[in-house]
Amino acid sequence: MQRIVYSATDVSARAFLILAFRKAGLDVRADAAGNLFGRWHPGGVFPPLTDDGEPAPVRVAGEGAVATGSHFDAIPGSGIYDGTVGVLGALAAVTALRGAGYTPAVPIDVVAFTSEEPTRFGVSCLGSRLLAGALAPAAADALVGTDGVTLAAARADAGYTGPLDDVRLPDGAYASFLELHIEQGARLESAATPIGVVTAIAAPAAGWANFSGGGGHAGGAPMASRSDAALAAAEVALAAEAAAVASGGDGTVATVGVWDVSPGAVNAVPAAANVSFDVRDPDGGVRDAVVAAVRAAAEAAAARRGLALDWSVVSADPPASSDGGVVSAVEAAAAEAGLRSMRLVSRAYHDTLFMARVARTGMVFVPCRGGVSHRPDEFVSEAHLRGGVEVLARSLAKLAGR
Amino acid sequence: MQRIVYSATDVSARAFLILAFRKAGLDVRADAAGNLFGRWHPGGVFPPLTDDGEPAPVRVAGEGAVATGSHFDAIPGSGIYDGTVGVLGALAAVTALRGAGYTPAVPIDVVAFTSEEPTRFGVSCLGSRLLAGALAPAAADALVGTDGVTLAAARADAGYTGPLDDVRLPDGAYASFLELHIEQGARLESAATPIGVVTAIAAPAAGWANFSGGGGHAGGAPMASRSDAALAAAEVALAAEAAAVASGGDGTVATVGVWDVSPGAVNAVPAAANVSFDVRDPDGGVRDAVVAAVRAAAEAAAARRGLALDWSVVSADPPASSDGGVVSAVEAAAAEAGLRSMRLVSRAYHDTLFMARVARTGMVFVPCRGGVSHRPDEFVSEAHLRGGVEVLARSLAKLAGR
Ligand SMILES: [Mn+2]
Ligand SMILES: [Mn+2]
Ligand SMILES: [Mn+2]
Ligand SMILES: [Mn+2]
Repeated sequence: MQRIVYSATDVSARAFLILAFRKAGLDVRADAAGNLFGRWHPGGVFPPLTDDGEPAPVRVAGEGAVATGSHFDAIPGSGIYDGTVGVLGALAAVTALRGAGYTPAVPIDVVAFTSEEPTRFGVSCLGSRLLAGALAPAAADALVGTDGVTLAAARADAGYTGPLDDVRLPDGAYASFLELHIEQGARLESAATPIGVVTAIAAPAAGWANFSGGGGHAGGAPMASRSDAALAAAEVALAAEAAAVASGGDGTVATVGVWDVSPGAVNAVPAAANVSFDVRDPDGGVRDAVVAAVRAAAEAAAARRGLALDWSVVSADPPASSDGGVVSAVEAAAAEAGLRSMRLVSRAYHDTLFMARVARTGMVFVPCRGGVSHRPDEFVSEAHLRGGVEVLARSLAKLAGR
Repeated sequence: MQRIVYSATDVSARAFLILAFRKAGLDVRADAAGNLFGRWHPGGVFPPLTDDGEPAPVRVAGEGAVATGSHFDAIPGSGIYDGTVGVLGALAAVTALRGAGYTPAVPIDVVAFTSEEPTRFGVSCLGSRLLAGALAPAAADALVGTDGVTLAAARADAGYTGPLDDVRLPDGAYASFLELHIEQGARLESAATPIGVVTAIAAPAAGWANFSGGGGHAGGAPMASRSDAALAAAEVALAAEAAAVASGGDGTVATVGVWDVSPGAVNAVPAAANVSFDVRDPDGGVRDAVVAAVRAAAEAAAARRGLALDWSVVSADPPASSDGGVVSAVEAAAAEAGLRSMRLVSRAYHDTLFMARVARTGMVFVPCRGGVSHRPDEFVSEAHLRGGVEVLARSLAKLAGR
């Protein structure tokens, strides 16, 4: 399946979510980016539901609310659980809490974020970046999608015409934010553990090392006179591996995944090699030190081999640490639910990475079969979904007081 | 320009060459592969020329003739000198010798070889391989071109319908073979030397190292659990460079030119990497030792990284050494012509590589501007062409006796 931001399927999912939020007794608003909010008011006082027209926007005041949610867009060829579990799971959790007679001391918001996936506009976590003030509104509106349409035009076409300046959350709007998500890895399944408690999100630093030299004929060019761009790339890739292994960090990873070598002929010395790098560690300092080591290796290889080097860092978002109180709440919730839990570092992006800039955050992971995600055969068992929702509900109850 | 074997432009070039051979007083024949031969009979006795119909095939007997020639096909986007210089230059040389009153003691053949370039059938030097018995006739006929047509059908379409078994030269047919060719490198130009005397052809050994592993997410897969196929390829490429530099050979070269890495995403651990290798040295033992070192590096990398390795050698033709007598004749000819010469190793294929299996061989190189070849801006000055033809003519005169 796929659900690309502001496409017909995305707009239709928004209509479904707004209805579902309202049926769950939530007060619904959308911001100018299309982030959707369903508010459970403290004390169980709900505004009257209307059955027609869009709900009037209600600004989130600085009132220490608790929020939970995830994204509902999906990349081409994906499954049905990535993101969606955290949106529908949040709805299920508040519904369960209400059914159990719980009333929160502060508002609880269910948030459905716009475009966590970078599919259309090339930037991940568009909605949460804007909410956290991590992306300038004008820069966001100027983004151009794969179809050549700007974000400004695309969101207007989907019905979101207000200024993006209004999207950023007021200071203190949320005291805490908790996201339920599938693991997208096999650590929980391997450990036969139904609940993962995320302690940090190791945001990647990613970019490109682009080497160029003179090339030449594989027969005619003597070794001593060569400027082989692919050999410099090879040195960078091996240096990245060595630096990650030696980083001293908590599971640092470094990857050279794209190898674009030209002219790419058996009998031609590579004249150009453009390789990507992707370095992750929960500690931003460790991560950046590995990136610096990779860059130093690239510069040394270029100098030694007589190559030009174009080095560019595309993204280097700060990692996020979960809040100790939120982690404790989730672990206690899992224990109350009778579910084993284990602590994990997330090495994939999530909206929580940006929500961590404006609130105390945490994440709850549930196992997915074989660690498979971003594929049609992505699968999460009903038992694991139920467990995740129960832990989310019990955690929210702790965070939102009684 | 381009001139692909058995295409309309190739067939039209054949018609031109047959006329030109006959105008030069040569007795013309074509074999079943389309190799064209123009014979200058000893003592200046020429058979009568006919102005219509194909010349009747005349078998080359084992009579110790001297041969010279090159190819006339051309890859897409090429210039006009590669190959053609050695065919038209041979015609010019025998014409000059005749004009100077020279009469050979043995026959001199001008040979225009079929398909030196691998463009259509994927195999280089088709004509000379068949002449030397280095390619089985049935295997040749079964080759399938890029257009899906077999060589058997394509040559029949161009008028060559006889059995390929008749192409192989009888033992002793040629005592010596000398090819005039552009250098396709910049050594002569750099040394401001108009004549290159080729001492050896360092035929490449070429093939593929195809690694495959499990891949994984750049965030989710810990370094210790990875089987990164591209890192194994990186080790192979660097090992190839090191082995070539340390070979002890005469200018050994090793190249990894094709890097096919998949899935090729910034955030994905490479699951497969298929890289080419191309190793050349005038000494086949040295070359094969470098190939063995590259293979050992590939097997070690695969074992250490938990990857499957598919190693294949596509070609490993024996290198060819020039005959000492032919080299001396060319050097003496250059000296008589008042042209400086230098000895060179050819690291590109030529038909001489296969003619060396059935005759004493040598090559005469002339400079091409900037070393550029296989490009439309390939250029050879008229002075260098004249020099090359004079050296070829004087060399043939020495080889064919007086
Ligand atoms: Mn995703
Ligand atoms: Mn997701
Ligand atoms: Mn060529
Ligand atoms: Mn050639």
